[in-house]
Amino acid sequence: MATIGVFDSGVGGLTVLKELALTFPSENFIYLGDTARLPYGTKSPDTIRKYSEQIMDFLISKKVDAIVIACNTASSQVPEKEWQGVPVFNVIDPGAELAVQTTENGRIGILGTRATIASGSYAKKIKSLAPETLVFSQACPLFVPLAEEGWTDDPITNLIAFRYLQPLLHIQSEAQIDTLILGCTHYPLLKTAIQKACGSSVQLVDSGEAMCEKLSDAFSKNILKKNVQKDNQKDSPEKKQADIQLLTTDLSAHTQLLAEQILSPVPIDHFEVVHL
Amino acid sequence: MATIGVFDSGVGGLTVLKELALTFPSENFIYLGDTARLPYGTKSPDTIRKYSEQIMDFLISKKVDAIVIACNTASSQVPEKEWQGVPVFNVIDPGAELAVQTTENGRIGILGTRATIASGSYAKKIKSLAPETLVFSQACPLFVPLAEEGWTDDPITNLIAFRYLQPLLHIQSEAQIDTLILGCTHYPLLKTAIQKACGSSVQLVDSGEAMCEKLSDAFSKNILKKNVQKDNQKDSPEKKQADIQLLTTDLSAHTQLLAEQILSPVPIDHFEVVHL
Repeated sequence: MATIGVFDSGVGGLTVLKELALTFPSENFIYLGDTARLPYGTKSPDTIRKYSEQIMDFLISKKVDAIVIACNTASSQVPEKEWQGVPVFNVIDPGAELAVQTTENGRIGILGTRATIASGSYAKKIKSLAPETLVFSQACPLFVPLAEEGWTDDPITNLIAFRYLQPLLHIQSEAQIDTLILGCTHYPLLKTAIQKACGSSVQLVDSGEAMCEKLSDAFSKNILKKNVQKDNQKDSPEKKQADIQLLTTDLSAHTQLLAEQILSPVPIDHFEVVHL
Repeated sequence: MATIGVFDSGVGGLTVLKELALTFPSENFIYLGDTARLPYGTKSPDTIRKYSEQIMDFLISKKVDAIVIACNTASSQVPEKEWQGVPVFNVIDPGAELAVQTTENGRIGILGTRATIASGSYAKKIKSLAPETLVFSQACPLFVPLAEEGWTDDPITNLIAFRYLQPLLHIQSEAQIDTLILGCTHYPLLKTAIQKACGSSVQLVDSGEAMCEKLSDAFSKNILKKNVQKDNQKDSPEKKQADIQLLTTDLSAHTQLLAEQILSPVPIDHFEVVHL
């Protein structure tokens, strides 16, 4: 049976876990949110790398068959395709690939935390796939707290999205992107506001959806072995097939509530606070 | 010579350090910003307590004569008046005392992070000083990222301040406060927006200013020994008297820039990244 380890600095990566759990309902998932040390977006590359290694070692001690880095900031510091023999999927590659497939005018925008934007990881990946592409980046430090405040459908969020996006879209700017990567796993929670600010002519690329395509590919190539649904589970349709464990390095009431809201309708089987 | 240790989860406490450095120009200061683990406001009480103890031990190893906890979240978990024999000044007590002295209608508002508000520390302290006082609290999770984004004089910040403050001020609500504690050391950076949202009839209580009064009191009572200005320093007025060391547990370019902006015009003598 395949167990997929997923990690993020906090609860944002649950947008990726939700997509994965809905797409692969027979697999087991262990999610590690490093909530005691969030956010990674303000930290230095060395610290982000150190924390990511600790978490990958921890997930491997839990016998995972694959690791999904559902955190753009951490992904930008972990270029490896495997860790201790276990396949590693960072969230940047699938997002960059999908954006390159999507764009028609060759102008791609990227939204992310300061650290992700400063790392230039998306731009480098896109340039390696399609060197002629023009890339325009924008750090959006207020998006994560807005998402965590729950102001997802709100005039204030619309205003802030417009402020951040204006340099990418304005008719007098050189950008005029037609494709926009949501380069932080929290941002799908603000998709409505971001799409409003962009207008319908810009296609949004969601990391979670892109990651699902990447994992489907890994399953079809037998890099990952898909869980075979058991007969006794078929007989009891009420029983959820996948087991979802949510581990955090710290847990406040607000974090737990937020986690349940983001994952809904996917239920959490087991909550636990762990120390790395 | 007195050396005062000041700490916060990040750079917000520099608003307190700035007030202290301007008020006590002959003293030396060591500031520790735990930037690798910020923000504390989202973490559990146990974790905040553990981190605070580590930092106080570290500052004592640096031979400080007093510790100022310039972080409301940490202050709410450290009730002690001394640690290993060194006087400890938390930022909550002076803020609460000044608010009680300031209010005329006995209705005090408190703004803070989720953790500070949930801890109820200000409310408890105010009630112990003046049991008849009515206290109204409001968590403002977006204020810190707004201050760190530099949107201090901005229509979006005004809107958000108004959203958070409305329940404390609205004429139909029961609150109608006349005094408002800025219960997070970042919030003085947003004083203009907060005052605009409140109107001029509400007095703001700034933790940094309140802390200065508390330390003046400690000096006058000989709890702390004031540094005697040296003759040779008098002769060279260009030489800054106090030595200000800024230590952080992680340092990104944005953090350093922000630190310099907040402390200005007070210069930083020494920057260093330390591991606790």
